[in-house]
Amino acid sequence: MQAIILSVGDELTLGQVVDTNSAWLSEQLAGLGITIRAHATLPDEQCAIARAFDEASRRCDLLVATGGLGPTRDDLTRQALAQALGCELEMHAPSMERIENLFRERRWPMAESNRTQAMRPVLADVLDNRWGTAPGLKARLNGCRVYVLPGVPAEMKAMFDALIRPELGAARDRVILTRTLGSFGAGESSVGERLGGLMDRARNPKVGTTVSAGVISIRVRSEFPSRPEAERALDETVAEVRSRLGSLVFGEGDETLQDAAVRLLLAKGRTVAVAESCTGGLLGQMLTDVPGASACFTGGWIAYSNSMKERELQVPHALLQSCGAVSGPVAREMAERAALLSGSDYGLAITGIAGPGGGSAEKPVGLVWIALARGPGGTLAEEKRFPGGRAAVRDRAAKSALNMLRLELMEP
Amino acid sequence: MQAIILSVGDELTLGQVVDTNSAWLSEQLAGLGITIRAHATLPDEQCAIARAFDEASRRCDLLVATGGLGPTRDDLTRQALAQALGCELEMHAPSMERIENLFRERRWPMAESNRTQAMRPVLADVLDNRWGTAPGLKARLNGCRVYVLPGVPAEMKAMFDALIRPELGAARDRVILTRTLGSFGAGESSVGERLGGLMDRARNPKVGTTVSAGVISIRVRSEFPSRPEAERALDETVAEVRSRLGSLVFGEGDETLQDAAVRLLLAKGRTVAVAESCTGGLLGQMLTDVPGASACFTGGWIAYSNSMKERELQVPHALLQSCGAVSGPVAREMAERAALLSGSDYGLAITGIAGPGGGSAEKPVGLVWIALARGPGGTLAEEKRFPGGRAAVRDRAAKSALNMLRLELMEP
Repeated sequence: MQAIILSVGDELTLGQVVDTNSAWLSEQLAGLGITIRAHATLPDEQCAIARAFDEASRRCDLLVATGGLGPTRDDLTRQALAQALGCELEMHAPSMERIENLFRERRWPMAESNRTQAMRPVLADVLDNRWGTAPGLKARLNGCRVYVLPGVPAEMKAMFDALIRPELGAARDRVILTRTLGSFGAGESSVGERLGGLMDRARNPKVGTTVSAGVISIRVRSEFPSRPEAERALDETVAEVRSRLGSLVFGEGDETLQDAAVRLLLAKGRTVAVAESCTGGLLGQMLTDVPGASACFTGGWIAYSNSMKERELQVPHALLQSCGAVSGPVAREMAERAALLSGSDYGLAITGIAGPGGGSAEKPVGLVWIALARGPGGTLAEEKRFPGGRAAVRDRAAKSALNMLRLELMEP
Repeated sequence: MQAIILSVGDELTLGQVVDTNSAWLSEQLAGLGITIRAHATLPDEQCAIARAFDEASRRCDLLVATGGLGPTRDDLTRQALAQALGCELEMHAPSMERIENLFRERRWPMAESNRTQAMRPVLADVLDNRWGTAPGLKARLNGCRVYVLPGVPAEMKAMFDALIRPELGAARDRVILTRTLGSFGAGESSVGERLGGLMDRARNPKVGTTVSAGVISIRVRSEFPSRPEAERALDETVAEVRSRLGSLVFGEGDETLQDAAVRLLLAKGRTVAVAESCTGGLLGQMLTDVPGASACFTGGWIAYSNSMKERELQVPHALLQSCGAVSGPVAREMAERAALLSGSDYGLAITGIAGPGGGSAEKPVGLVWIALARGPGGTLAEEKRFPGGRAAVRDRAAKSALNMLRLELMEP
């Protein structure tokens, strides 16, 4: 079964509101084994909506539209569906009664315009809305099943779950399962090369990558007639992806780098403190994003100025003078002092030039030193050069530090 | 001028990622007086994308597409545009050189697949991407202007601003000017009440509010035949909004609370240090988001554990025992020690219960104490109770601290 999703509303085409309904519906439909051919978003214009209904219905088996069922003059999806079906609107008495009851119960005055919401195209059926005033609609257009739901996400979701999912469930002939892995430390093209033939478009399970803020996500999508087949193939492909990417993979699903770092710290019963210069608190903020971080994160220093590095972290003045604040020796010193002063197992330090100012030919914007003090295990230090603006440099610096800690904790 | 926006990516049609690019582009185009006819979202399938290019280009004057320009096998927008244009792809030597340089600078190995990114349809021009590896494309298809940009939001936005906006600006026929004010410290309904009749839907300039993460934005949109008319009306309405909201307004346009705080610190030649418990570095991160913050931000302490509060900030053990870490006296002590130890004019401290654990009947999740040490001016402390989950509590706590500092700096 192939589906197209339509969203209606000026607020969407004007960019005032981000359309989250289409993503949600897509995920639900994909989970039912339905292939999504496209999303389309239209303004509140009756003819444009009617034409989209007509054209989309000729290209798929299932059309789900949201929005434009409200009581105001710019709500025209109902009229557009009637136009596409080539029929009139009529008053639907049970809907009118339900709407009147709703207003009576809430002791609100009912506006005349709410009567419009009880109108339906003669050739359409009504989908009861028990969560709001606008009933949904259901019809057949050019042989395609058409469902129309209100745009309010809570109502749309409740109606989909109660009224549409059961109908579509019966129609399902395939099972689609997906899993997503997160990786860090290599570029998208390098991840793509390691995955090689796994990324062939014709392969099933299908493997795709997306990149967001330095993190490469690997999506695996398995589509088979039965759930056991889909599950087995999915597990096999995920295992193959993990084997090809090795320690680049930090987690699965929604797990972030900081989730992974905290999980490993807790599992090993270790603690960490931070010393941050150019990231100014970002690394600490990321670690403390994770609920329960207090069991492994002692705290740290935002050693933004040189005086803070000297006075609080006791970085020798001579070292700052001879090597500069952005240097391997200073990063090492910061990491070691952070671990020592806080009594933590690890000290993680970042010092760099986030820009836009402060760069030089020798030490350009994007140059960052990251150090990890490991007590008796000695201290690691890495020089990085990150592209992009201030926010990107800071983000990649903090993530690289988390990744350095994660890789250390993965050692046996 | 009429526009259609295309987004490409399986992650979008599968609902794994919400498409924010289309909304952002719509807002920019609407601001240029361009009417958005539709958005469409397509999977990574070359023929479907090529067909969408062809059909959409026949219905509008401007087509902006995002996504599918990456280096992997599922990035097919480049090929699809060539297919729609009915031409071959060729290697674009300057792009190849730029990509090779980029990898050389970053000292990364370049994957063979990155070479694909330097390919362009023979009938298209290349849009330089100075923010990443994927160049954009520009072409004429069926008389329609077509722009193709990478899907990574930061790159897409930077390229639109630098390369497309100036070209489209020349084509506009009406003048629409907008200004946005940011306010903090009152709810949306309270801001709405103060604005009163300014928010009438029929008014021009139109005034609307949106709320995002505690910040109420007031958007003023002025639409007139000529620029002087639009400007004068816009300025008058903005002045009226400012007068009604007073010190709730912290800035205009993209200015954030931290921008405002840093601007005021720099203007007065003052410095600040932070001491953070439950925010774990978020306040420092926000302040150092602002380029040039080093002139007014000395640094701080992430005093996440009690031992850090005692050992590094010298908060008396007895005080922690008698009042608890989340209390007015401890917040005051943290703020005062931060100012004193760092030699800063102000010390800003946060201690609270971000949840999900750690709450009690007396001190529930969401309870936060914020203190501002002002040297000879004495120390202010405020108790707050924030709703929402861990991320929301931490975000509101850091913003409330920034706002406390901002209001102090606004005093004559």
